[in-house]
Amino acid sequence: MIWFTEYQTENVGLTIKATQVKTIKSKYQEIVVLDTPEFGKVLVLDGAIQTTERDEFMYHEMLVHPALLKHPEPKRVLVIGGGDGGSVREALKHPSVEEVHLCEIDEEVIFVAEKYFPTISNKLRDPKTKIFIEDGSQFLEEKKDFYDVIILDSSDPVGPAEILFKEEFYKKVKGSLRENGIMVAQTESPFLQKDYFEKAVKEIKKVFKNVGVYTGFVPTYPAGMWSYTLASDNINVLEPLNAERFSSLKDLKYLTKDIYENLFSLTPQFVREMT
Amino acid sequence: MIWFTEYQTENVGLTIKATQVKTIKSKYQEIVVLDTPEFGKVLVLDGAIQTTERDEFMYHEMLVHPALLKHPEPKRVLVIGGGDGGSVREALKHPSVEEVHLCEIDEEVIFVAEKYFPTISNKLRDPKTKIFIEDGSQFLEEKKDFYDVIILDSSDPVGPAEILFKEEFYKKVKGSLRENGIMVAQTESPFLQKDYFEKAVKEIKKVFKNVGVYTGFVPTYPAGMWSYTLASDNINVLEPLNAERFSSLKDLKYLTKDIYENLFSLTPQFVREMT
Repeated sequence: MIWFTEYQTENVGLTIKATQVKTIKSKYQEIVVLDTPEFGKVLVLDGAIQTTERDEFMYHEMLVHPALLKHPEPKRVLVIGGGDGGSVREALKHPSVEEVHLCEIDEEVIFVAEKYFPTISNKLRDPKTKIFIEDGSQFLEEKKDFYDVIILDSSDPVGPAEILFKEEFYKKVKGSLRENGIMVAQTESPFLQKDYFEKAVKEIKKVFKNVGVYTGFVPTYPAGMWSYTLASDNINVLEPLNAERFSSLKDLKYLTKDIYENLFSLTPQFVREMT
Repeated sequence: MIWFTEYQTENVGLTIKATQVKTIKSKYQEIVVLDTPEFGKVLVLDGAIQTTERDEFMYHEMLVHPALLKHPEPKRVLVIGGGDGGSVREALKHPSVEEVHLCEIDEEVIFVAEKYFPTISNKLRDPKTKIFIEDGSQFLEEKKDFYDVIILDSSDPVGPAEILFKEEFYKKVKGSLRENGIMVAQTESPFLQKDYFEKAVKEIKKVFKNVGVYTGFVPTYPAGMWSYTLASDNINVLEPLNAERFSSLKDLKYLTKDIYENLFSLTPQFVREMT
């Protein structure tokens, strides 16, 4: 056993008892798989925890379902990043969804997810899932006016994901959405990554008419406090739309109908003031 | 500079860059004051972070205000534990409050709070505040049918605070409440201290008719996810009572009227299933 420490900022870290199972240097990043008594298997990219078996449901449910519920009838969904497969798994819980495209730049992440994280990656080979190993930004240029929902399930805005937090990129996302299209992005910790958070929300607001920020618990992410940003031109994402469809979603362990209907009521005052 | 690590369980810790400012061995516990670039001054009791200048508002606002708002007219408030003074400070924001009693077993905690945490302890010498250096359980026996709101602002249920998480103790709390009295307790992390959490809620439910559990972010507490339990015999604490009084509360940085009115809507599904 070792103690693995993620330094979430220069001044604070989360330290976890672990056995190092696998280390891969891919073309883009260092991929580490840990086995831990507290969180089960843990996926680490360039030193930052991406997903753990024990708390991934909190992140994936909160990232995926609000955007899909707010859309009147989501059929085509794109996940950018998210090579672990958790967002794909959640998107496929919506009965109207006909296809989920996953655009992941690093195919090694997918190989690792399929080998070590079967409960997260188990829908990557679903007949409705199609995987594209491509740069997200280039991929969007080939898919104009195509998706109902686009989910930005990226790593932190350093390294390969840096480009995914800029106005230029959000414009491409908008270009790839159909009428009534909705985007959702993970937008970092409003407490420990205040600058990234504020910047991302500001850039998204430059591009989309309706923007809403909400927060949720993710124990293994910085401060345990995570943010998500919904955006759309035609849909007022601030409304609790189509809540009656909530009952069609199976096996949720975090999101409740109550949380969905009060999504923006949960935001602490200091986070409101930042957006 | 050192790295101070709190092991939140055997298998996970929070590690913080710090200068150790002061260490005191009191009759009850080891009291450490750290100065940290990320969280400002940090108070540590027996190795566990109790309060930090940067995130204490999240804990104290969520612990104190819901209970006081739900009471029709809180005049007499008791804080058990809470020697840092944060709960006293928040309770005194309610215009109806005439006196706040603080019952803290360890007077060294109060000395340390007054010396090193002036923004937290600044109402400990308020004319409405009275400090009792006593065992909380014994203190309650002297104060039957006396308080409108009792706030259990204790440390973890090990060491001096262990007794504060038992049915026997909650019965004494009930005996010290007046008609329409309300109790609120910090009840640990539902994620990393699942057993403590479930036990505390179960014991409280044995004693009070109306019980409600809610959650909130506290980045420096285990999992960043904290729970609070409201309880009363006469008041239905599950209702968003007296929300119009919210506007009389000054300088809130976490709690909003929206959060107050939807307090129990915020609870994730896996926490609901535990209560």
